[in-house]
Amino acid sequence: MFTRHVNVTNNNSGYDVKVGRGLFENIGVEISNLNFKSHVLTPDGLKFAVITDSNVGELYLETCIKSLREYGDAAAVIFNAGEASKNINTFGQILEGLAANKLTRGDLIIALGGGVVGDMAGFAAGCYMRGIKFIQVPTSLLAAVDSSVGGKTAIDLTAGKNLAGLFYQPELVLCDIDLLKSLPEIEMQCGMAEALKTGILRGDDLFKFFENGNARENLDEVIALCVDYKAGVVERDEREQGERKLLNLGHTIGHAIELCSNYEIKHGLAIAQGMKIINKIAFRLGLSSQETFNRIDKALNNFNFDFNLNFKAEELFNAILADKKRKGDVITLVLPVEIGACELKDVNINALPALLELGLMREE
Amino acid sequence: MFTRHVNVTNNNSGYDVKVGRGLFENIGVEISNLNFKSHVLTPDGLKFAVITDSNVGELYLETCIKSLREYGDAAAVIFNAGEASKNINTFGQILEGLAANKLTRGDLIIALGGGVVGDMAGFAAGCYMRGIKFIQVPTSLLAAVDSSVGGKTAIDLTAGKNLAGLFYQPELVLCDIDLLKSLPEIEMQCGMAEALKTGILRGDDLFKFFENGNARENLDEVIALCVDYKAGVVERDEREQGERKLLNLGHTIGHAIELCSNYEIKHGLAIAQGMKIINKIAFRLGLSSQETFNRIDKALNNFNFDFNLNFKAEELFNAILADKKRKGDVITLVLPVEIGACELKDVNINALPALLELGLMREE
Repeated sequence: MFTRHVNVTNNNSGYDVKVGRGLFENIGVEISNLNFKSHVLTPDGLKFAVITDSNVGELYLETCIKSLREYGDAAAVIFNAGEASKNINTFGQILEGLAANKLTRGDLIIALGGGVVGDMAGFAAGCYMRGIKFIQVPTSLLAAVDSSVGGKTAIDLTAGKNLAGLFYQPELVLCDIDLLKSLPEIEMQCGMAEALKTGILRGDDLFKFFENGNARENLDEVIALCVDYKAGVVERDEREQGERKLLNLGHTIGHAIELCSNYEIKHGLAIAQGMKIINKIAFRLGLSSQETFNRIDKALNNFNFDFNLNFKAEELFNAILADKKRKGDVITLVLPVEIGACELKDVNINALPALLELGLMREE
Repeated sequence: MFTRHVNVTNNNSGYDVKVGRGLFENIGVEISNLNFKSHVLTPDGLKFAVITDSNVGELYLETCIKSLREYGDAAAVIFNAGEASKNINTFGQILEGLAANKLTRGDLIIALGGGVVGDMAGFAAGCYMRGIKFIQVPTSLLAAVDSSVGGKTAIDLTAGKNLAGLFYQPELVLCDIDLLKSLPEIEMQCGMAEALKTGILRGDDLFKFFENGNARENLDEVIALCVDYKAGVVERDEREQGERKLLNLGHTIGHAIELCSNYEIKHGLAIAQGMKIINKIAFRLGLSSQETFNRIDKALNNFNFDFNLNFKAEELFNAILADKKRKGDVITLVLPVEIGACELKDVNINALPALLELGLMREE
């Protein structure tokens, strides 16, 4: 088992990310090892609420509840699976569900699921009674390598993705790789796209798996390296004032692609496409070498994704205007100038259409 | 003008509460004096979104927007006045309204209104794009003396009041006493009940105004003393781990009364009633002297409130079970054992029915 402690300030002592196999069926034990100093133990022990979606619930809820009940009362709040649920209505239903189960401030929420569950359950935990403790149990590769670590939580608004949410850190991330066995192929690919993003940021020890096309065969190590990299970034810049913005590599354009497709294009594919475009932009601006460009482009081509989406620069530009990373007229782009040494660049939004044209231009 | 700086940790440098007259019509100047280090100034200057309700908007929105527009773009997000609006739906509409006005991370929200507006706008500011800056402009006495200071934000859920929200501190509280002139009499009384609560907690310099029945005639000083007291409590215990719980004097029972009345009884009256009951409980348990009991009871009787509500102990008990202050089986009561020296007491919920009976018992 790989354990990475994350030192963050809004949590007294930070938290552990545990990556391994066979962890989930003993989730009760893992939780009982947490040090809930502020909790008033009732005669009935802890009380738990598992927040999950209909798909994950079907597969894993029973095992989870069974293990938890050895340590206290456990209830479940279940919502319909899918990105379409990541909205204010479902958020309200989750909060009402927690209240209906009479969860109190000393109790614990378990976010059991992929990115959508983690984002929504974390946001709910941060708001319910002005904040109660929660843990992340990622069941998708995307959540395992990225979204479950670092405390970003959110829901979508009509105007765009993740426009409302919190920085709210969990007490534990329990990543059981055995849970990923049930993932559909497309979900594995989407998670791998986010892992490749981390590979480009971190550099060769992780990137080489993607370059060599053997990331799947080394899943445990890939996840551990991703978690370790992300934890370091989060420790140094918890609230995304600087360095953490690097994690948005491919995301500004990727989010715009998702929005333009009415979210029919999955997040992983969209950010892979976003990385493809920003890689071209960096190269054509003369900021990266031909070799760097080629290595990243080849690693992306190892995916079975369709990279010939037909969005126009103008469409993407309009979608980017709604991006929450924008501050006034300035947006920060992440440029892959070198593998393991990407750079942030503040760009006036007026310059974006031309940059997008550059990124969308076909080879001559 | 009275200015009290509040040193809190989740805001780099804390914030000022300014109490005075004639401040509001120059709100633009006041905001331009804030030090928005993180803001990227655009050619158009700052962008503002004023969140207010239909009543307050009618009276004050035009003046506010006019003053703000000297410093930047200003939009308004308006919702229906009343506690009934303090729910997840209105919260969602506010977030959508901010997004529709393309507010970005460097922009500023102005919460213009009473307690409901402050609670909802502060919560929205804390969640919109994972947190943007906001200021409080209280237009009710209750908000001026209490809710606008200290960063508690919330919405109600079906199961009870303020069950979802955040601790999220403003950048400035601008309390213009001239704005309170338009308040209906009942709203003044409700605010005064909250000010009296602070008087019981703070002690004689503030309490004497209520004892002598001349709080109205000394409104500026009453507000300043309340703000000063609350700011000190918030500085010492921002996230209500201990001392800040004192501010809930009268509130556990008061909230239960509100819930039992389906919120037909206003918050101020409910907590006045709650103080009446808890004062009796403290005295009848032998924890406070006859003199203390009498002084508090007399100060409460100076209100034109109906203190003969006919709720049964059992009804109130069931309502209290939904209280978010409960941790497992334990709830913390604030006992007015001495004016200026109230005490917290953890009570098992099983003991509550008997205590409530004690507080509801008529004099022989």
